[in-house]
Amino acid sequence: MTPFGGLWPAMLTPLDSAGVPDAACIERLVEWFVVQGLDGLYILGSTGQWPLLDLDQRRLVAEHVVRAAAGRIGVMVHVGAVATDDAVVLARHAAAIGADAVSCVAPIYYPAGPEATFEHYRRIGAAGNLPLFVYHLSLVNQVAMDPREYVDRLLAVPNIAGMKITDRDLYQFGLMHAYGGDRLRLFSGADEIMCHAALAGAVGAIGTFYNVWGRACQLARRQFVAGSVETGRRFMLVFQQAIYQALKPPGAWSFLRAAVRLKSGIDVGMPRPPLGALDQPWPEAEVERLVAWVDSEIEA
Amino acid sequence: MTPFGGLWPAMLTPLDSAGVPDAACIERLVEWFVVQGLDGLYILGSTGQWPLLDLDQRRLVAEHVVRAAAGRIGVMVHVGAVATDDAVVLARHAAAIGADAVSCVAPIYYPAGPEATFEHYRRIGAAGNLPLFVYHLSLVNQVAMDPREYVDRLLAVPNIAGMKITDRDLYQFGLMHAYGGDRLRLFSGADEIMCHAALAGAVGAIGTFYNVWGRACQLARRQFVAGSVETGRRFMLVFQQAIYQALKPPGAWSFLRAAVRLKSGIDVGMPRPPLGALDQPWPEAEVERLVAWVDSEIEA
Amino acid sequence: MTPFGGLWPAMLTPLDSAGVPDAACIERLVEWFVVQGLDGLYILGSTGQWPLLDLDQRRLVAEHVVRAAAGRIGVMVHVGAVATDDAVVLARHAAAIGADAVSCVAPIYYPAGPEATFEHYRRIGAAGNLPLFVYHLSLVNQVAMDPREYVDRLLAVPNIAGMKITDRDLYQFGLMHAYGGDRLRLFSGADEIMCHAALAGAVGAIGTFYNVWGRACQLARRQFVAGSVETGRRFMLVFQQAIYQALKPPGAWSFLRAAVRLKSGIDVGMPRPPLGALDQPWPEAEVERLVAWVDSEIEA
Amino acid sequence: MTPFGGLWPAMLTPLDSAGVPDAACIERLVEWFVVQGLDGLYILGSTGQWPLLDLDQRRLVAEHVVRAAAGRIGVMVHVGAVATDDAVVLARHAAAIGADAVSCVAPIYYPAGPEATFEHYRRIGAAGNLPLFVYHLSLVNQVAMDPREYVDRLLAVPNIAGMKITDRDLYQFGLMHAYGGDRLRLFSGADEIMCHAALAGAVGAIGTFYNVWGRACQLARRQFVAGSVETGRRFMLVFQQAIYQALKPPGAWSFLRAAVRLKSGIDVGMPRPPLGALDQPWPEAEVERLVAWVDSEIEA
Repeated sequence: MTPFGGLWPAMLTPLDSAGVPDAACIERLVEWFVVQGLDGLYILGSTGQWPLLDLDQRRLVAEHVVRAAAGRIGVMVHVGAVATDDAVVLARHAAAIGADAVSCVAPIYYPAGPEATFEHYRRIGAAGNLPLFVYHLSLVNQVAMDPREYVDRLLAVPNIAGMKITDRDLYQFGLMHAYGGDRLRLFSGADEIMCHAALAGAVGAIGTFYNVWGRACQLARRQFVAGSVETGRRFMLVFQQAIYQALKPPGAWSFLRAAVRLKSGIDVGMPRPPLGALDQPWPEAEVERLVAWVDSEIEA
Repeated sequence: MTPFGGLWPAMLTPLDSAGVPDAACIERLVEWFVVQGLDGLYILGSTGQWPLLDLDQRRLVAEHVVRAAAGRIGVMVHVGAVATDDAVVLARHAAAIGADAVSCVAPIYYPAGPEATFEHYRRIGAAGNLPLFVYHLSLVNQVAMDPREYVDRLLAVPNIAGMKITDRDLYQFGLMHAYGGDRLRLFSGADEIMCHAALAGAVGAIGTFYNVWGRACQLARRQFVAGSVETGRRFMLVFQQAIYQALKPPGAWSFLRAAVRLKSGIDVGMPRPPLGALDQPWPEAEVERLVAWVDSEIEA
Repeated sequence: MTPFGGLWPAMLTPLDSAGVPDAACIERLVEWFVVQGLDGLYILGSTGQWPLLDLDQRRLVAEHVVRAAAGRIGVMVHVGAVATDDAVVLARHAAAIGADAVSCVAPIYYPAGPEATFEHYRRIGAAGNLPLFVYHLSLVNQVAMDPREYVDRLLAVPNIAGMKITDRDLYQFGLMHAYGGDRLRLFSGADEIMCHAALAGAVGAIGTFYNVWGRACQLARRQFVAGSVETGRRFMLVFQQAIYQALKPPGAWSFLRAAVRLKSGIDVGMPRPPLGALDQPWPEAEVERLVAWVDSEIEA
Repeated sequence: MTPFGGLWPAMLTPLDSAGVPDAACIERLVEWFVVQGLDGLYILGSTGQWPLLDLDQRRLVAEHVVRAAAGRIGVMVHVGAVATDDAVVLARHAAAIGADAVSCVAPIYYPAGPEATFEHYRRIGAAGNLPLFVYHLSLVNQVAMDPREYVDRLLAVPNIAGMKITDRDLYQFGLMHAYGGDRLRLFSGADEIMCHAALAGAVGAIGTFYNVWGRACQLARRQFVAGSVETGRRFMLVFQQAIYQALKPPGAWSFLRAAVRLKSGIDVGMPRPPLGALDQPWPEAEVERLVAWVDSEIEA
């Protein structure tokens, strides 16, 4: 059984130079995460470019990951889509291929009220028999609701198991935890407050930068949770600055590509335009410096 | 030559009960707009459910509309997509089938800076030889920029011809007009301030509710522009209230379906979930009352 | 009887070099507005620096204005304050000295729910027997409410007569008008959409830039309302650009001072810091150009 | 010397039934905080009703507090005001009476750009010789700036010693800490994430609810910082829920009054309207339950 907790990279989807998912690279990337002993993989989320891939590509990527993982690491498949039906199809597929869980973002593009949002979740939750983790992305999620009422309604969704909350508001996060308790396992999706979120009830963290610093963050998070507050504080001080610098031009996507290649030898390519349209390569030395800065901040 | 101005419905995409575009209904709907003497059709925008249709469906809908229009009414095809490449493919297709113009929304979902946004526009503008109208949707568009600089950069996009601005801020709208002048033909996308926008330089209006009240709005707009300020004021007072009521439960999609059916006999169906997941039908009498309220406010 | 409508400058409060209201300048400024034939004066609003003046100063300014106006032009006194009691004191004073109306902004600084906000209005409305115009400043007003409910509650406030709505959203504006009708006389407080607001039911305009261009705006507004849509469009095109340029460094306060001095010979001084702390003087020629640009756009 | 760190209540200003600061109550309240061993007092902030008191009242309150504190507990006086000059006067006064530090909120009401904001701070910092803690209140502060640039400019303000940051964004908080280091002592002003903020570099916490739960929060914070992560997590889980419930009707001001009276016997009265205009008393039993819930969560 997969323990839903700990450190899960929001896995990049390696693309070849034509912008098509690259099966060989996907498998090598999964292997690299397995070897590092990370706790799970969150695939085809925003970092995994779900909105830029079609349904066939998403199914193929999921199959490659599950096969490569081979039960050695948990796999949660983001199946969210604009159309409910598409998400339902993907949720069934994830169950069929043996993934461990599914996740879905709130309805996007069209403002959706709470009724349509929960109906969307219900259909997706009912589509397979996998645990469902709702992906609460504050930039997208348009349902403003009392946390208690929100949790109550969420707990009525079939197969609901938890949430991935990508938001820096740890008061709302903590209230979700307070009202959901053990019935709602919460992952923090905001890398930059990874340890802080543990104080608000997060059992784990899912995020983009764990593609690069998964092992360091896993160690830091574990040591913090075990009582090394000073370790957590010092690590987060460096990690936040590194993220801040990685987001500056030439941009996070270029940084992620260069940093993953530097550490693993795997070239994940650039995302499909417009995301990858204009990014310039990072200076190699700068990437090395940033990567080493965070990695050297923590020891097992 | 198509005059880019006047009243253009953001055409609904009729779907059959399986959620698939319905060719026969599409053609009947186009015919109905032609008979009313409307100035053009804006297809596959937000109202036309572009994010809920796949590329094949979008191409098919565009073909049906262009064929049915048969040069009797202008057709502008929204080709925006999450991936730039998809939008480029659609833009080429629109040119190939003989549409009059293309339009595209700003990059969605991922926060895109100005560089990626303009690169997105440039590739789409260069894809065909059709005039390009950028669709500025304030709920989505993430580029905050000085209006003068924004206009300057927009005018450098290949084939740029204008904008559809869906925003209630008529100061920004007016500044766009001031700096773009005749080189940038502006359509207002906010139905509820259709006449007000003419004062800020709009040459026309593209919007959802013209599926129902296209003719009445066309008349009111013309009379206002010709100097009947009081007509404009009185009409907008009623039109705003009608919109406000149509947006209340059971919701705008249900209202649009019932109102179009009432007036034209055409059943456009419900949009794909989550949009159409929960809407209940409107009481027939209430739809009749709202439809007649606006229509009776204006005379040719 | 004062007709509540037409063009009302949100009058600057002339200060001497020590930052104290300057009685002689105040009277000269009032006289200048009377001579121009403007429709009324809105004093001690945001432009009149109410939050930077103490209660004694506010009373003194009001007395000077009312005396100088001498019944030749309407005077509406903004009496809003952080503390309800202070606003009540000022409202009684305004009634005692013979002002024509009072106005008050929503509670500021502390987030106030609808109950406290309407209680604030009720006490101020009941304080004198003057008509009350609630000043809805969207940057400050924290009550989000259905327009119909909002209007219903507002109409229950003692002596309520109308609103000054400083917001560019003419849909909300129009709905307020639709539900308030003749019982709620609406002034637009957003200079940059002065004519557009007339289409949404505004009976007049109150604003900062009418200190400079009161007469031109009055003419343009009248001609537009009388049916010269093209005049309105052309005037607003220039007026919006002029506002846009006046807001650029060295800033609106410096511009207003220089422009009023240029046209009237009156030096209103700079506002108290932090507002006036850093503004540099505008180049005289640039001020002349902007002033003349707008004034030459319209003829009686 | 006062150690700037630890737990500081944002002290309530006791008012008598006429709404005037009550000297006797003020002194009793200070004494009660001294006896509890709290680390300092932050007076005349938002909780202390600065915008509802005039300059004379603010000076009087400060004098009473400093006298009662008698060097046994640190006193930081919030001197922020709408007008820079008023803040300067109060800053000089605070120095003259022997306070330990001053604090000021960013310019309020009028949108102030970065230049005016920093000039405001500079004049206040230069007014006395006391350490200055800028009060960054995200609901009010209108300067959006790169954290590194913001910190650089802040460090150039005379006598700058730190900040009180009332914002839940611990990424921005951590970046401020990263760039300010020891030169900028940061207090968290968001009670609901008191412990979380320590992970982002906060050396202490200043807040409203420490009027009630100062001792419990001091203990929890200390134990967390010393390595009891689980204590921090469990305490915050309860504290967040208690805050959430205290903010519900009949509202926080009523709760604070009742809870302080329950624990100390001191009646701080209700704030001046509109704040205290409509609050109903809390049921005594409910107040007792909430107070005990938090207090019983922690032991020395």
